[in-house]
Amino acid sequence: MGSLYVGLLHFPMRNRQGEIVATSTTSMDIHDIARSARTYGVARYFVVTPLPSQREIAWRVRGFWTKGEGANENSRHGEALEYVVVAQDLDETLAWVREAEGQDPFLVATSAKATGRPGISYDALKARLRTDPRPAYILFGTGWGMTDELIEACDAVLPPIMPDADFNHLSVRAAAAIVLDRVAGMDRQT
Amino acid sequence: MGSLYVGLLHFPMRNRQGEIVATSTTSMDIHDIARSARTYGVARYFVVTPLPSQREIAWRVRGFWTKGEGANENSRHGEALEYVVVAQDLDETLAWVREAEGQDPFLVATSAKATGRPGISYDALKARLRTDPRPAYILFGTGWGMTDELIEACDAVLPPIMPDADFNHLSVRAAAAIVLDRVAGMDRQT
Repeated sequence: MGSLYVGLLHFPMRNRQGEIVATSTTSMDIHDIARSARTYGVARYFVVTPLPSQREIAWRVRGFWTKGEGANENSRHGEALEYVVVAQDLDETLAWVREAEGQDPFLVATSAKATGRPGISYDALKARLRTDPRPAYILFGTGWGMTDELIEACDAVLPPIMPDADFNHLSVRAAAAIVLDRVAGMDRQT
Repeated sequence: MGSLYVGLLHFPMRNRQGEIVATSTTSMDIHDIARSARTYGVARYFVVTPLPSQREIAWRVRGFWTKGEGANENSRHGEALEYVVVAQDLDETLAWVREAEGQDPFLVATSAKATGRPGISYDALKARLRTDPRPAYILFGTGWGMTDELIEACDAVLPPIMPDADFNHLSVRAAAAIVLDRVAGMDRQT
């Protein structure tokens, strides 16, 4: 069984006008996805931004709950945030995984829109995680989504969550929860 | 096929100490769950709180995006928030559904902990939605969860999302997204 990693990328993203930008980190994204990642047994959740001030904020959110005031509250937020690693770019996180696992992860992009890239179905990724010892690393974008170049640098891309819906604008917090449930959730009985 | 309704309840909830309280509405809960509800074709998303000031805030969040400044932005948030109805208690929302549907909904509780109540599996609820014309209405709690009395007033309760996980503290935004994907998502191909 391969380890599962998750990354939330803030650069290089598209903005509403299609320009390439660095989006802002939000504490809600850090928290919610950390809690989902911890629930589904994710090895590490990388929060990735090139902006030093934003990395500082992300570390502070993590520290508040793991070492600061929040750690004393009767809450288990800290247990989820311990799995958060803040990094400046995708390469730094890939080096992290390589160091921990001794091999490169199978890198998976997500997109709210269909892409022309080699796809992997949710069930195929789930089966792969169970049978292949190689780690997998799923990337989530922010803003108006990852650049094409970033998606092309991945080994595969997951299909949109609800390709036939007339509205497909899930928050990244909701999208990450659903993707984790599909690829790392338990098999259900009817 | 029955319509699906979703409700986010802020009273009567448990707090950390087990006391019965009214929790605070947050704009992130309104937004995220509205976007998930719209993606999965939910008929209405009820935001329920007995506190007039909190209902005022909830209506204002909705109005900003459907009629105010946000409506002019090149974004589809308004389309999701149009499906939000703010109500003061569960009874008011049940009357709303009865008025719209001509019958009472099949009322479904959710809980992060196992309960002794009659359960319905995710797949059974999904099948029911497809074959039974009676609407279903899924309730989500806030704070430390719904009171037992509230869960007992429902027709059935869904099992915890990840009953065997050693950490089961998803945000309600993530939980609602996962539940909707399980009961209203498309069947997937491997």
